[in-house]
Amino acid sequence: MSKVLDINSLLLEVRNAVQIYIDLLLISKDDDDRLKKAIKYSSTNIGKAMRAFLVIESSKMFGVDTAKSMPIAASVELIHTYSLIHDDLPAMDNDSIRRGKPTCHKMYGEAAAILAGDSLLTLAFELLSSELIDFSSNTKLTVINTLAKAIGMNGMAGGQMLDILFEGQELAVENIMEMQKKKTAYFIAACCKIGGILGNVDKQSLSYLENYGMALGTAFQITDDILDIEGCEIKAGKKLRKDYAAGKATLVDKVGLNDSKIKAQELIDLALEEIKNLQCDYSNLSNFAYFIALRNLH
Amino acid sequence: MSKVLDINSLLLEVRNAVQIYIDLLLISKDDDDRLKKAIKYSSTNIGKAMRAFLVIESSKMFGVDTAKSMPIAASVELIHTYSLIHDDLPAMDNDSIRRGKPTCHKMYGEAAAILAGDSLLTLAFELLSSELIDFSSNTKLTVINTLAKAIGMNGMAGGQMLDILFEGQELAVENIMEMQKKKTAYFIAACCKIGGILGNVDKQSLSYLENYGMALGTAFQITDDILDIEGCEIKAGKKLRKDYAAGKATLVDKVGLNDSKIKAQELIDLALEEIKNLQCDYSNLSNFAYFIALRNLH
Repeated sequence: MSKVLDINSLLLEVRNAVQIYIDLLLISKDDDDRLKKAIKYSSTNIGKAMRAFLVIESSKMFGVDTAKSMPIAASVELIHTYSLIHDDLPAMDNDSIRRGKPTCHKMYGEAAAILAGDSLLTLAFELLSSELIDFSSNTKLTVINTLAKAIGMNGMAGGQMLDILFEGQELAVENIMEMQKKKTAYFIAACCKIGGILGNVDKQSLSYLENYGMALGTAFQITDDILDIEGCEIKAGKKLRKDYAAGKATLVDKVGLNDSKIKAQELIDLALEEIKNLQCDYSNLSNFAYFIALRNLH
Repeated sequence: MSKVLDINSLLLEVRNAVQIYIDLLLISKDDDDRLKKAIKYSSTNIGKAMRAFLVIESSKMFGVDTAKSMPIAASVELIHTYSLIHDDLPAMDNDSIRRGKPTCHKMYGEAAAILAGDSLLTLAFELLSSELIDFSSNTKLTVINTLAKAIGMNGMAGGQMLDILFEGQELAVENIMEMQKKKTAYFIAACCKIGGILGNVDKQSLSYLENYGMALGTAFQITDDILDIEGCEIKAGKKLRKDYAAGKATLVDKVGLNDSKIKAQELIDLALEEIKNLQCDYSNLSNFAYFIALRNLH
């Protein structure tokens, strides 16, 4: 339990540092610019910043300090925020509350929300290719390419499409797992892999990081679906039991709460097995896996 | 006039080559994947491919052959297609016809159209950072950064927001010109600049290319607005006189057809002046400026 408390405070610390970085990045004089208002509105509260945490901690393991990985950590949160803004749109999940506030389109209208998402995605690639990133050009390109692959049509965007298409359908467990991998796990795995890329590790180590991230990301999505049933709306900062009502395809819906918890725990165990192969102090990443498990599995 | 005929056939030649490149890039076995269907649907007819033409011809001027600049030319067309899919959405310009066919959301629904746009933007950055691009890592990063700046919140996306916000408003000519620069010219200028980046030219030459592109891009937007009033719907492949009906802020609306034509011609002359400063055979770029002028100014 103390491991989880430690991770909780480390997560909060990382989150606050990333938030400050993003706030400074988005400072501008155009205070009456509606698009920038919408962008800032959705970026001012980056949530738990789990993806930034994974970038920063996986980098630290290989001797890359936080000051250097910070702009990349900020970029992945910009990408995550873009995906949430678009997912919340009426034509997508039609959500009205996100991170405890009205969603972007509820505040600024759909056009501004679509463009705010587009702009945040673009800004992430602008930042990743800028001189603010203090790594070799080769390393920067590998990071850009790894992220782009993880969030595109064969990754996050593809998963979000399946999530919508699967609504109300009778599906096999494999379909649900495939959708969740694309929607959530590829991006999380890319964040973990980035630490290895920045630290110039060998291919085998990159593969351990990726496997850890895939298992962790899939477990995270399952615990998210469990929270949708068992969780507290105020704590979650979004409407719950909505996925269930919308007929969303989740593992919980398919195999029930108990078996879903068992599956999530198996995935957490798998993530822990993978990370243990690394020849370095992996304690923050293993503790983070315990933290995900303890969100609601016990 | 023969210059324009030459450019017309060169433009068609470039367009066809870029279309083949994009078609091959998007070949996949997932024929039942709705997102990929939507992406292919919108990318199979890339229109005139003016931006790809500018990348390829501005590169050729400095000795960079088409085989090398092609993947970058394809990337800018993917970005252009993403912007059109999102611009056509009901919450944006609400268009039903694009490039002579029903718009992406009319065929595949809004969710697929939003995600198809997101995926195309992401794919462009994946391609630009990939090993398919045969330039130094430094050059590739400069191209990525130049494009990201041109199409983000201070460029194309910002311009699209202004375009929507300005609807039905009484505006100064400066506001309209600022909107059109952001919406259209920055991206076109970036495409022209890319040739110089790939050809490793000096800063002064980059600046001539950028100035040419800004003037050309602004002139192009004005001629587009003139076409919206005077043009033929079948030739344009989209609904016309819709901008006028929607109360869109255009220069034509503000100063009339005649003065708009004069302004566009001034900008074309400016573009020609800028390109003449380059110490190379700039004939295809100057002929392209004549071609834009002749679209409808005479």
